[in-house]
Amino acid sequence: MITNLEIALDEKNLELNTNMSSVMHGAIMELVSSEFAEEMHKQAIRPYSQSVYKIDDNKWIWSINTLNDYAAKNIINAITNNNSIYIKNRESELNISNYSVYKTSFDDLFTDNYLGEKRSRYLTMEFITPTAFKSNEKYVFMPDIALIMKSIISKYDTLSTTTDIMDDNLLDKIVEDVSIAEYRIRSRYFYLEKTRIPGFVGRLKLKINGSQNMVNMIHMLVDFAQYSGIGIKTALGMGVVKKL
Amino acid sequence: MITNLEIALDEKNLELNTNMSSVMHGAIMELVSSEFAEEMHKQAIRPYSQSVYKIDDNKWIWSINTLNDYAAKNIINAITNNNSIYIKNRESELNISNYSVYKTSFDDLFTDNYLGEKRSRYLTMEFITPTAFKSNEKYVFMPDIALIMKSIISKYDTLSTTTDIMDDNLLDKIVEDVSIAEYRIRSRYFYLEKTRIPGFVGRLKLKINGSQNMVNMIHMLVDFAQYSGIGIKTALGMGVVKKL
Repeated sequence: MITNLEIALDEKNLELNTNMSSVMHGAIMELVSSEFAEEMHKQAIRPYSQSVYKIDDNKWIWSINTLNDYAAKNIINAITNNNSIYIKNRESELNISNYSVYKTSFDDLFTDNYLGEKRSRYLTMEFITPTAFKSNEKYVFMPDIALIMKSIISKYDTLSTTTDIMDDNLLDKIVEDVSIAEYRIRSRYFYLEKTRIPGFVGRLKLKINGSQNMVNMIHMLVDFAQYSGIGIKTALGMGVVKKL
Repeated sequence: MITNLEIALDEKNLELNTNMSSVMHGAIMELVSSEFAEEMHKQAIRPYSQSVYKIDDNKWIWSINTLNDYAAKNIINAITNNNSIYIKNRESELNISNYSVYKTSFDDLFTDNYLGEKRSRYLTMEFITPTAFKSNEKYVFMPDIALIMKSIISKYDTLSTTTDIMDDNLLDKIVEDVSIAEYRIRSRYFYLEKTRIPGFVGRLKLKINGSQNMVNMIHMLVDFAQYSGIGIKTALGMGVVKKL
């Protein structure tokens, strides 16, 4: 299963901002078993993403997504089995008293997008926390269809239990069929303890040409990206995206 | 000489918006001699740019730049020698009663940037009217250092009376040395009579590495671009840029 845990954050306890996401990652790693932490540390594509961000006016949430049952058991259960968890970096307790859980699966994502209502040729993505890619050893912080889709597909193929999506020509075909129709974006730094990484936030409206199969696949991938995140450092809080 | 003519537009006469720019181009072509109009029509890079856009709160201007004396004589003088000009498309007279003229030259642009105060390694460009490029037969409407600089240098080398800037390795060197440090941009369509062209507007902050010579050159090119415009259809009103 894919599991999303959203914890409402209380402003009184913590100074809230997206750059706190990496602190929260630290708190998760303190909470889980050292074996699991070590195992995760070795993986280039991890079976979870998490971030702190604002939804609506002044409501902040800590959103944690696990992309398989193993990660759900080790991370989500470890959090929700407590009434509060300790945020070492802030020397503060966070109450786990107001949260929601939503579960879906790779099968559901497939069924919804390929067998459900016909998907639209337009699709708007909102990048909520700074998003960036590494390409040719350099950070890229301007959106690009190939980099976006390559990142989602890598995560999907690594973590899904179903057939792999990527093949030799797929990325070329996607670049041919999918274009950015409209956008409103800005650069924004994501701060880690000792460094900052340039990313972008904002909206992209995609137009999908080609077959209905291509349309369905892009919708499915973007649906999946809402859980996996896009680009680099999605375990630390970057690359949160929503489909509008 | 490079000449800028800014005519204050009176909202009462005309429904003002940037898409009116192509109508104003039509008015210029009606005003000039048919020989000059025909000659301009044949040129890929024309010695003028013009656009209608808003400055400050609600003040609209019609800005016309000529990049050599021949264009100044045929366009700017033809306009300022009249008390009003007829805008055929709108069946309306435009009063030429409140305008300013500013003159500079390729020599001045060089002297200011290479021999004046040391130029900064940061530079912010504001794209005021929709800006786009043609690359591999396709419209590109997301900023890209190579496309921006290639466009400016083409216009500069075509129109300047001094030495050409472009050489075989220059664009590679620019891409190596100049990067986008921060940005805030959005797509915006530019409307022509029968079609619309996707462009972008907004701000780019550039960081210039490399030699002080490179820094000076980029500043000079962007200064020049304030008169020439950047990218496609600068005679019709696209690609207006200001250095902040």
